[in-house]
Amino acid sequence: MAFTFQVNSDKFIHDEKLLAKAESFRPTIHKAAVKPVRLLDPEREISRLGEYGLKRDDRIILDFGRHIVGKFSVDIAKTGSPQDAPLFMRIKFAEMPAELQAESSDYQGWLSRSWIQEEFIHLDELPARLELPRRYSFRYVEIKIIDTSPKWQAVFTNPQAVAESSADYSKLRKPEIADDLLSRIYDAGVTTLAECMQDVFEDGPKRDRRLWLGDLRLQALANYATFDNIDLVKRCLYLFAGMTTEEGKISANVFTRPENTPDDTFLYEYSLFFVSTLYDLNNSHPDPELVRELYPVCKRQVDLTLKMFDAEGRLMTDENYPVFVDWSNDFAKDTAGQAETIYVLKQFIALAEITGESGIESYREALSKIAGYAREKLYDPSRKLFVAGNGEYNIASQVWMVLAHVMSDDENREILRTMIRELFPVKGIATPYMYHCIAEALFEGGLKDEAVKLMKDYWGKMLELGADTFWEAFDPDKPEYSPYGSPIVNSYCHAWSCTPVYLISKYL
Amino acid sequence: MAFTFQVNSDKFIHDEKLLAKAESFRPTIHKAAVKPVRLLDPEREISRLGEYGLKRDDRIILDFGRHIVGKFSVDIAKTGSPQDAPLFMRIKFAEMPAELQAESSDYQGWLSRSWIQEEFIHLDELPARLELPRRYSFRYVEIKIIDTSPKWQAVFTNPQAVAESSADYSKLRKPEIADDLLSRIYDAGVTTLAECMQDVFEDGPKRDRRLWLGDLRLQALANYATFDNIDLVKRCLYLFAGMTTEEGKISANVFTRPENTPDDTFLYEYSLFFVSTLYDLNNSHPDPELVRELYPVCKRQVDLTLKMFDAEGRLMTDENYPVFVDWSNDFAKDTAGQAETIYVLKQFIALAEITGESGIESYREALSKIAGYAREKLYDPSRKLFVAGNGEYNIASQVWMVLAHVMSDDENREILRTMIRELFPVKGIATPYMYHCIAEALFEGGLKDEAVKLMKDYWGKMLELGADTFWEAFDPDKPEYSPYGSPIVNSYCHAWSCTPVYLISKYL
Repeated sequence: MAFTFQVNSDKFIHDEKLLAKAESFRPTIHKAAVKPVRLLDPEREISRLGEYGLKRDDRIILDFGRHIVGKFSVDIAKTGSPQDAPLFMRIKFAEMPAELQAESSDYQGWLSRSWIQEEFIHLDELPARLELPRRYSFRYVEIKIIDTSPKWQAVFTNPQAVAESSADYSKLRKPEIADDLLSRIYDAGVTTLAECMQDVFEDGPKRDRRLWLGDLRLQALANYATFDNIDLVKRCLYLFAGMTTEEGKISANVFTRPENTPDDTFLYEYSLFFVSTLYDLNNSHPDPELVRELYPVCKRQVDLTLKMFDAEGRLMTDENYPVFVDWSNDFAKDTAGQAETIYVLKQFIALAEITGESGIESYREALSKIAGYAREKLYDPSRKLFVAGNGEYNIASQVWMVLAHVMSDDENREILRTMIRELFPVKGIATPYMYHCIAEALFEGGLKDEAVKLMKDYWGKMLELGADTFWEAFDPDKPEYSPYGSPIVNSYCHAWSCTPVYLISKYL
Repeated sequence: MAFTFQVNSDKFIHDEKLLAKAESFRPTIHKAAVKPVRLLDPEREISRLGEYGLKRDDRIILDFGRHIVGKFSVDIAKTGSPQDAPLFMRIKFAEMPAELQAESSDYQGWLSRSWIQEEFIHLDELPARLELPRRYSFRYVEIKIIDTSPKWQAVFTNPQAVAESSADYSKLRKPEIADDLLSRIYDAGVTTLAECMQDVFEDGPKRDRRLWLGDLRLQALANYATFDNIDLVKRCLYLFAGMTTEEGKISANVFTRPENTPDDTFLYEYSLFFVSTLYDLNNSHPDPELVRELYPVCKRQVDLTLKMFDAEGRLMTDENYPVFVDWSNDFAKDTAGQAETIYVLKQFIALAEITGESGIESYREALSKIAGYAREKLYDPSRKLFVAGNGEYNIASQVWMVLAHVMSDDENREILRTMIRELFPVKGIATPYMYHCIAEALFEGGLKDEAVKLMKDYWGKMLELGADTFWEAFDPDKPEYSPYGSPIVNSYCHAWSCTPVYLISKYL
């Protein structure tokens, strides 16, 4: 796994008309008060919380019994002699217990330490109600007393969280799912999606808390199957459309606080997935007017993309505009990128047809050439597998070629069977994002049982490990794995892992 | 050096009438904006502060050029790519540079870690103006970036302190002091006093930030010679008088936030110094009405004290009501305590005479007996020194017997000369509080040159070491000495060290 920070100097335009539309679709944030249900310390009871006087190095861990995105407050008093020193304490928020065991001082990862959810608080005067102003993503809250004084102890009462989400549970339509494990996977997927539904579809409410296009595509699909909040998808599409580079390129993610700002990070297929997200929205809730309005933005992405293909129809990858596919950089991505382009080009042509635009013949020709190159040069009929530019046969190439329906249904099924036989079990892929693609390809290729098995093995394993929500990264062979070297900055509620709700609804 | 935390269960009365008077004398807090004058890093200039982009582990140290008690604020922006992570930083406040070199994680002292003046701050959205709500005591502010992200840096502009004090410099009357060092000692003493003048006379604005009676006595004396804020002294007297134990004992210190609360700590002569403080106030600004009002409180302290003397007139010390004299517990304090009682009894009788109370003959008799015991049993005419109960000849015994004028002026001078010859240089005493007593005894005994030498050697040495204000603890033989094992919790601006302004005004 590796990740390279991009720093680019592109100039961006702000289309105020589109951004005003994004603003008009800003969602209501629903808030709900939540109380902790127990203390993790087996010797202490939550009902007796106010009886415990805590001194230097004492700690309590509140368990709210569910994942929460929101704010925390608690009443703090003292017992003993008058308060002859400030109270100094650390408050740590954790989605999973593993985070509580990690000490921030040990963290040496490349990702910013600032994501560690812990605060150091001085209170000069007790009693006080502590209301932390920041939003956290957590189920557990550890309060550690760094110091009182030898003369008095701190006492905590009325801990409370206010959970925030723009997901409206009254709109949720859960299908009947006979299989218990699949049903539980579905539920955790719904929670994961809901927790990421905030002012935008966030990728992770703990970290990075912003709108990524690759995540948005999957969140939107999961959303149509559950909360069906169309306005929130529109808001996100307008945000991307309203802030492109001067040449029209969409960045991989945007910030909305303190003001709308596009990031200077670009990923090849993330730009293209703007097309997919619009296509999926229109599929789910046909809206030709919206398609016509945003079609020029789609076209610009496709035009920029097609410049990267050579005369034969082969994708010439550019490390400054990388094909993502998955976090892993341990496999060749050019063939997968070629397939993603085909996948999107088909959707783009369908959108163009809706707009009634003439002159899209050139795009049909481009699709034909690019798909033809894939079939003729990248498919190895002797192996029944697609090959990457470096001669490598990897899962990602097969998966995306199947999703793009480059070959016939029968050939796709054969490719997938070969993949399962020769390339499974999955190795070196640790994101639910890529696992989603594998599962969907299996469904698309008609291998439903294999798809269900993969879902149960992967998402089911997270549940087995205590997940309330699905994770940003998970390698079933290395359950402790963190791309950052420590669980303390892992995101245990991450949008791109919510897709079982979509897969189950669509294929089962 | 040692300090024992007292935890007592005495019940206290709150005399609302007296506390209302305390409230009526609550001072105005004067506020003044202060800008830093330089950066401690020689390679950086304060005028170019806004040009420095700071990333993980970078730090800047602002030097405000003077001691400040107050609040801190600064504008924070970012430079580089969009802010893709919170800013996390540590802000450390220091009265002396030595505090900046000490790491809080290394601190293992018995005093609460919560006094360490450092905050850990997350800012999710930049730009922002950071306005820290707590009050600090500092000249230096170190800002250390714990993390940004690899894509952007933090930029600081417009750092500002708002200094707070109830001292009114327009009232200050500095005498002409020809000697440069004494003049500088005077100035630092004034600053020390002013910085401790807040809502009450605090002992130290960094730590413990409350009203101690032993410190109040000295602050009040220094105050009459400088800012002459009579109301603030009255406020403090009413606070002590308004919150005694049910048997009438005054505690060693009181808290005024969040509400008026007496501490459950009692020191023998601190209770008695209520008498001294009222006596000194009336000496400075005669107010027979106030004397009459507070006389019963004085009498109660004296009555409680006299119960601790045996039939011969000897103080039977009680470890639950310890004689303080100095922080050191390495010398016997009974003879000094006997002397302090004589010192206060004389003042009490003078106050009683003002009230016109009859029936104070018994107090005159008690004084006579206690002073007689001192002269006959505790004075060793062969050595020309007072001896403590354990046979020890120590400085504190001589000093307090001279201050109490137990012997004649000639004998006092002889005692002091013997003390200088046999017991000097001072060893094992590290508080300006006790050094003040030594200096004052030398002045009282007519040894002006020796007193000046002591002042220059002791307070002058602090100036030489870079003091802007005088310290809670200082041992000239061990300049690095901290009673807490680390300078990080030392109070470098401590009320009981401000007395050179009083000594110079009174004796020079």
